[in-house]
Amino acid sequence: MITSLDDTPLMEPMLPTYTDIVSAASRLDGVARKTPVLADTPLDDRLGMKLFLKCENLQHISAFKFRGAWNTMSRLTPEQRSRGVITHSSGNHAQAVALAGKYLGIDTTVVMPNDAPQIKRDGTERYASRVIAYDPTKHKREALTDNIIRETGCVLVPPFDHPHIIAGQGTAAMELINSCGPLKTLLVPCGGGGLLSGSALSARALSPGCSVIGVEPESADDAVRSFRSGRIERVQNPQTIADGTRTESLGKMTFAIIRKTVDDIVSVPEEAIIEATRLLFETARVVVEPSGALGLAALLSGAVRVQGRVGVILSGGNIDAPMMARILSPSH
Amino acid sequence: MITSLDDTPLMEPMLPTYTDIVSAASRLDGVARKTPVLADTPLDDRLGMKLFLKCENLQHISAFKFRGAWNTMSRLTPEQRSRGVITHSSGNHAQAVALAGKYLGIDTTVVMPNDAPQIKRDGTERYASRVIAYDPTKHKREALTDNIIRETGCVLVPPFDHPHIIAGQGTAAMELINSCGPLKTLLVPCGGGGLLSGSALSARALSPGCSVIGVEPESADDAVRSFRSGRIERVQNPQTIADGTRTESLGKMTFAIIRKTVDDIVSVPEEAIIEATRLLFETARVVVEPSGALGLAALLSGAVRVQGRVGVILSGGNIDAPMMARILSPSH
Repeated sequence: MITSLDDTPLMEPMLPTYTDIVSAASRLDGVARKTPVLADTPLDDRLGMKLFLKCENLQHISAFKFRGAWNTMSRLTPEQRSRGVITHSSGNHAQAVALAGKYLGIDTTVVMPNDAPQIKRDGTERYASRVIAYDPTKHKREALTDNIIRETGCVLVPPFDHPHIIAGQGTAAMELINSCGPLKTLLVPCGGGGLLSGSALSARALSPGCSVIGVEPESADDAVRSFRSGRIERVQNPQTIADGTRTESLGKMTFAIIRKTVDDIVSVPEEAIIEATRLLFETARVVVEPSGALGLAALLSGAVRVQGRVGVILSGGNIDAPMMARILSPSH
Repeated sequence: MITSLDDTPLMEPMLPTYTDIVSAASRLDGVARKTPVLADTPLDDRLGMKLFLKCENLQHISAFKFRGAWNTMSRLTPEQRSRGVITHSSGNHAQAVALAGKYLGIDTTVVMPNDAPQIKRDGTERYASRVIAYDPTKHKREALTDNIIRETGCVLVPPFDHPHIIAGQGTAAMELINSCGPLKTLLVPCGGGGLLSGSALSARALSPGCSVIGVEPESADDAVRSFRSGRIERVQNPQTIADGTRTESLGKMTFAIIRKTVDDIVSVPEEAIIEATRLLFETARVVVEPSGALGLAALLSGAVRVQGRVGVILSGGNIDAPMMARILSPSH
């Protein structure tokens, strides 16, 4: 059995609360960037609503993941730090753990699929002590990671299903709402559910009337199905341009929070994700990776029909230049 | 003779001072965006310095120009407002005047070259009362504008050579230095010199030891030559990808300030501008137009060799999607 960061079994996890997010925010103060919130963009007229774009694409390593990684790793004991940490991730969490490890002086091992975007591999290799690539069509990242932990005794920093990770990710929505005021709707990309569950905890506390809606690609719609069926559903190595959401399933903890606090989860087609990525470039001059554009994609595709004050978390900006070139080229 | 905004001749202008920038900042408070300053990007390791990127690409209309336009137009008397305003601009100032006019309820006429980037024409047409296109190989924008002023009595909002414009533009460097602390060097794109002269006034006041260096394209190097010769030199319709710097010359007022307060002006080749635009996308996930990348281009090309704490004003982000696609495509 894999043990948690504090070496106790994770079978009966204590779910994090908004208090843990407040505590995470003080730990992140002066370390993570307080990313800007863009409002009054030309998207408002186009969509007939008042949008607030939380630019986590401008966070360290260009994704919200730094928040959770820092909140988790800065709490490790000296003994845990000396053992080093390991994680598995298709990209942004990997970079986040690697950078936090560099700042904190902790040895980092990253297990990463060999089809991760080049920009995410480069970013991870820049900071990680070592990167172990695997073929996601043949191996499961969790099993590979477990083997290394057994061999080396290093500490797992899970990509999403841990209270410290969730609390860290929740600080983005906390900053958003503290900056722009109450929202009618908050749209959040959903992969493993760390950002979505943390965001929902913040929204419940700071903007009680706000509908929190998760968004994932149609081809990786495990969270939509889980939300409907009431149990954790899975996808196998889904093919979507939104590589940050290829996670097999929600976690036990993120799913438990999502069931309690999230209003809906919707899915969007690939074309809407591409169109949203292009439109964010054209109208707000921001670089988002396809996963980061899911919230806007839900508005463009009609998966979510709302008016009023809408928060959208742009979760990351790590898109390879050639892919961005294809999305922006006139043939699209 | 063209009269100034307060209907007095502009022959002996009063040069603005830092006090005017402080005053502009209070006028812009709550209206302009306090744009983020990005630090700790991978560029630091690559260039061996500590960079602070002031993201005016995330200002309203995606360029610093909104600052000067608002500072100027919000000071117009009711009588002046009722006459409407006019300006000439290849793009960003045009959009800025148009948006400020929309907010303030002032009729706006924009005289714009027919080779301005599509994104800037679209942005201007979105907000302006009317746009008058002209062929820059056949006509001078100033003469066209003068004719319309004589016919209609509207008020000129000059693109750079006015104390209220310069004071507004100076608030960007003021925010930068107030946010990051004293700098060793500040790199500023230079077209007509409004941003450069305003930035230098702020740097002189807030970071006295800071070298302020203007940057322009080699093919539009009128400011470099003016700085050397001591008199205003000109370029005619220069061909550079940095369309925001195609201005014919510095203004009397901007040149007077630049001679007193700027340490140097350098020029950079087109390839360095393109490389800087691409690199800002890849390393900092920001969208800058080529003119906005001039500061980084000066570091990449070796035109400026510095170490330590370097501020770079990313002046704007209005780049057409097809052009960005070309810059990001693998052939580059």
